[in-house]
Order: sequence, then C-alpha cells, then structure tokens
Amino acid sequence: MYGPGDVRVEEVPDPTIDEPTDAVVRVTYASVCGSDLHPYRSMAPSQNGRRMGHEAVGVVEEVGADVTALTVGDTVIVPFSWSDNTCVYCREGFNTSCVHGGFFDGAPSATQAERLRVPQADGTAVVIPEGTDESLMPSLLTLADVYLTGYHAAYTGGVSPGKTVTVIGDGAVGLLTVLAARQVGAERIILMGRHTDRTDLGREFGADDVVPERGEEGIAKVMELTGGDGSHVVVDAVGHLPAYEQAYGVLRPGGTISRVGVPQYEEAPVGMASLFGKNATLTGGPAAQRRYLEAALPQVLAGQIQPGRVFDRRLGLDDIVEAYRLMDSREALKVLIRP
Amino acid sequence: MYGPGDVRVEEVPDPTIDEPTDAVVRVTYASVCGSDLHPYRSMAPSQNGRRMGHEAVGVVEEVGADVTALTVGDTVIVPFSWSDNTCVYCREGFNTSCVHGGFFDGAPSATQAERLRVPQADGTAVVIPEGTDESLMPSLLTLADVYLTGYHAAYTGGVSPGKTVTVIGDGAVGLLTVLAARQVGAERIILMGRHTDRTDLGREFGADDVVPERGEEGIAKVMELTGGDGSHVVVDAVGHLPAYEQAYGVLRPGGTISRVGVPQYEEAPVGMASLFGKNATLTGGPAAQRRYLEAALPQVLAGQIQPGRVFDRRLGLDDIVEAYRLMDSREALKVLIRP
Repeated sequence: MYGPGDVRVEEVPDPTIDEPTDAVVRVTYASVCGSDLHPYRSMAPSQNGRRMGHEAVGVVEEVGADVTALTVGDTVIVPFSWSDNTCVYCREGFNTSCVHGGFFDGAPSATQAERLRVPQADGTAVVIPEGTDESLMPSLLTLADVYLTGYHAAYTGGVSPGKTVTVIGDGAVGLLTVLAARQVGAERIILMGRHTDRTDLGREFGADDVVPERGEEGIAKVMELTGGDGSHVVVDAVGHLPAYEQAYGVLRPGGTISRVGVPQYEEAPVGMASLFGKNATLTGGPAAQRRYLEAALPQVLAGQIQPGRVFDRRLGLDDIVEAYRLMDSREALKVLIRP
Repeated sequence: MYGPGDVRVEEVPDPTIDEPTDAVVRVTYASVCGSDLHPYRSMAPSQNGRRMGHEAVGVVEEVGADVTALTVGDTVIVPFSWSDNTCVYCREGFNTSCVHGGFFDGAPSATQAERLRVPQADGTAVVIPEGTDESLMPSLLTLADVYLTGYHAAYTGGVSPGKTVTVIGDGAVGLLTVLAARQVGAERIILMGRHTDRTDLGREFGADDVVPERGEEGIAKVMELTGGDGSHVVVDAVGHLPAYEQAYGVLRPGGTISRVGVPQYEEAPVGMASLFGKNATLTGGPAAQRRYLEAALPQVLAGQIQPGRVFDRRLGLDDIVEAYRLMDSREALKVLIRP
C-alpha cells in the first residue's frame, strides 16, 4: 500500500530464514482486515510502500535451526503478531507485548503475500491437525485475528452469565464479538449496527436485539432496552471516537467498556462526566490471540462454532485491489484471499 | 466557600427532617478532604456560596418516621455520599450510583457544620458500637471517605498477592491506598511522593520504596525498580493530568490504572500510545464506601489498622479557614475538625 486507495500487487524476493527461530510459510489463506481499511483511507503516501496483511493459514516450507515445534509440510495458523510464547508477558497472557514480539502488519514480511517469514515460529504458529477438512480453513483463519479479537473483547470486558453486553459495530469483529460473548455466557446481547445483512448474521451468532440507530438516538434505544440501567459490558468494535462516546453513553454504573477496534484517536473523554463518575472501567487492546487459540481450535474443528461465516467473498491475491475496494465500500463484509 | 481561598464560617438554620427517611446528626468529627482543595483553588466565585464537607462522625439527634436502623443517641459514621443501600446499583456494589443517592459536598447540608441532615439514613449511616473508645474516632472517621477511597483504589485495581503496586501521590488518599494495598496482599508497594514526612508515614503503612522524582524521571525510576517491567497496578491518588500520564508511563503491559483522585480534566490520552497498545485497563471512580465499610469497621475497632494516623492537626469548626490554609500550603496532611 502506497497511500490512500493505492494498493499494488508487486513481485518481491521470497522471504528467507534470517534467524534460527524463523520459519517460512507458503500462505494458502489470507484476508483483508477492517483495520487495514484505516491506512487504506488515511495513510500518509509512502515512497516505499507498506507490506499489508496480518492473518494467515499456510504450509511450512522451511524452518530455522532452533525451530522444534514445526515440521516442513505442517499446515499452521499464523496470528497477527509474533511472540516467543515464553517471556513474562506471554506467560501473563499478553503475547502482543512479547519482549521478542512484533506485528506482521507493516513488517518486512506480511501475510497478503505468497510467502511469509514467521519470526519466533515456535511461539507464533499453531499447527492444524493433518487431514483437517479444507472447508474448515476459513474458520481456522479467523483464529489468526478476527474471532479471537472478538473473544478478547468479551474476555477482557468480563462478559459472563447474567450480564448484558452491547456490541457497537457490525463489521466482522463486531459480529464475532457477538459469537464470543455467547460462548462465554452473556445473558443478553445487543448489537448496534445498521447493515441488515450483517446484523442478520449477528442474530444467527447470538444477538438478541439489534439497534440500527446511532449517537444520542442509539443511546436512548439501548437505555430503553435495558430498562434505563444500561449495559454491563460495552464492546467498541469500531475504533472511532463516536463509537467510544456511544459506549460510555450506554454503560451501566460500574460497567466495563472493552475496546478492540484500533482507536483512531489518542485523546478521549475519561473524566467525571464520562468514565469516572459512574465507576466505569475501560479495557481492551490488541487481542492476546495466543491466550485463546488452543482452546478455540478444537471448537472450530468440532464444528461447534463457525466464525468463518464472516467471509462473504473469495478472491485471488492478484485481485486484492478489488478486495480492498469491496470492503471499503461495504459491498463485502470480509474477503478471503487465496494466494 | 464563596470562591478560591474564600471560606467563611456562617450561622445557618439547623437542618430538619425533610423526608421520613432522613436523620439529623450532630457532627462530632469532620475533616477537610484533599478534594475540597480543588474548589478552594479554582471554583468559580459564587453569590450563595457552597456548603462544604463530606466526612463525618456524629450522634443521631432525630430520625424520620421511616428510619428503623438508627436510634437517637447512636454514634454513626456518615460517608461522603448517601444511598439507600438496597437499589440495584447498591446491591452491585456501586452505592455512589444509587438511584436515591447524592453527594454531601455541595449539597444543602454538608458535614463541615454542627449539624447535618442525612438523607436515606438507614442506608447511609453506619452505627459505631456503644462504648467505643474516643481515641478510635479519627480512624473511624476515615471510613467516611479517605481510607475506603484508598481501599476502593486497591480493590478496583485488582491488587492481590504477587502484584506490584505504584501509588502516585503522598496525600492522605495516597498514603491510605498504601495501607489498603497492604491489607489486600500487594507483594510490593512503590509510593511516588516528595514530602519526606508524608512518605515516612507511607513506609509505616507498608510502602517498600519511595520515588520522589516526577514525570519522565519518576517513570524511569519506577521502571528501574521493577526491572524494566513496570507496575501491575498503578493508583492515581492525585487527579491531575500529569499524574495520569505518569500512571500509564509506569504501567506493565496488561496492567491496571485505578483512579481515585477526582480527575480535574475530562479529556486524556487513551489510544495506542497510552492505554490501548499495552492492553491497559483504566478503572476507579467515587469510592463505593458501603461495599467496604462493614468489613473495615471491626478492623479499626480491633486496632488492626490505624488509618486515623493521617490526621496531623486538630482544629475547631471556627478555625476551619485555617484548616484549609494549612492543607492548601501542605503544612498539614489532613486536619481533624471538632465542631
């Protein structure tokens, strides 16, 4: 990506094993993330461009001398950040803060590509059992980011039985937050979104109510639905300031706002009138995928959850310019890329 | 209080029973709170003035027809907010969001006075057992606000065994947060403050380290003390933006900032560079004293904790102008008022 709307498919040298902890993976499934649309809309034009993509399923082609958990030929999930999975922050469940970690998006080797260099391969890549049906791959791909980002929202927000959850945003993360909130036992799930085809899928994932209104009107609607109390947990799956303002607007006293939409702002209200006065908690961040991945994998393999249903288009890598366009225009919810 | 630095002692009519749920309490112990210094320094001048004070111990003089838990002659603790202690938010532990609640500070009847009208008296006032030694009263008074505000900071911050806590601010709330953090089992407590007489008391309350530096220098010092990791929990017991910035500066990835200093700002950094990037949680608010009061009362009565040690001056109500001056100039840590 060279600037707003300027995505180019280019030939670059194949990645190589640079460190003994690296692996090279041939990407078989990738996708475009809602967060890729932020630079697509507003990045500063760049001479050198920026490698894009941070979700992949692929086949291990080569491993460094120190890699012990992966074998050439393994099919693996590669999450959006790499991590050694052994450092103190990884052990505490925050692999996105790994001392040897980093993020594929914008890195020298990213996932919207034929091949990918995976640093800290033992800690990063998770093997999919041999013989897994190809039809499960889209759902397995969501464990690289989007489903587990929804799960992170529900988990850090403290969603649990008896709690009402409001999810702001009907993009893929929002819809999969609904699915995750249902998994962890939310009593009631309110989905705020205005695209009927998307919110319909949200209902299938477990949303009890859909609120298409936004701003003050949307806040009033959620307050009405909750008998004036507001929502115990509110997930911001958007990342823009109006969604954040909506979040504290519908929050119950003592409730929690969990953000997983990457904030496109740095400053926001946090004082007496927004968070402090009602003892609101604000949490969230880049999803700690590794904390949840091993538990989610068998659920997908057993067909208990089908997060891959968010993919409504499938294109080749050569058509990725079209994939961005479809997602930017909201013609597609999420595009599966087959390099 | 009529404006910055303008505190006046005035004769006003005695409070009366206005609602059947009211009680009238003769105030025997009150005090000046660090949060009273915010209007003392910066309130907009007012024609009518503002009644001040929100911490009291006193004797019940009269009760309304619906009051059943209190008897005339009872000595009671009156916390800084009133609440019915039965509504849904009270039951969820957030009595400061009570549907029948309110705050004494600025209310028609406040605690820096001879007599006080206590709304929702059954839910608000807590009886001190008859025969309690008078020497315990200052410590019991801290259960009206300052110690339980420190406790709220430690509790909502998730302080627990194994965790490092950094407390920003060596005022009475900061020092009592140290005491509370020790009660809930913090492994290590770092106190950031530069007034040696105060931080010495902080050490007696349980601080392991004292960092007098502020800003970038203070952040570097805490990072050094924590081996570069930062602190699991950081308590902002100040309420000004530089303290908040210090808080996320010393926070460990996945850590929690708990605020109990009333924020003197509405907007603050919360994005990728401050909170989101390291999965920081921001929590806190007006202390839910009623959640903790019953458990803390026997601890004080048994002499297990002595939070009243924060009172280093004792003045009559007629000298309250001097009490404000002493606290504003930091000559006094906290002044006990004997109306």
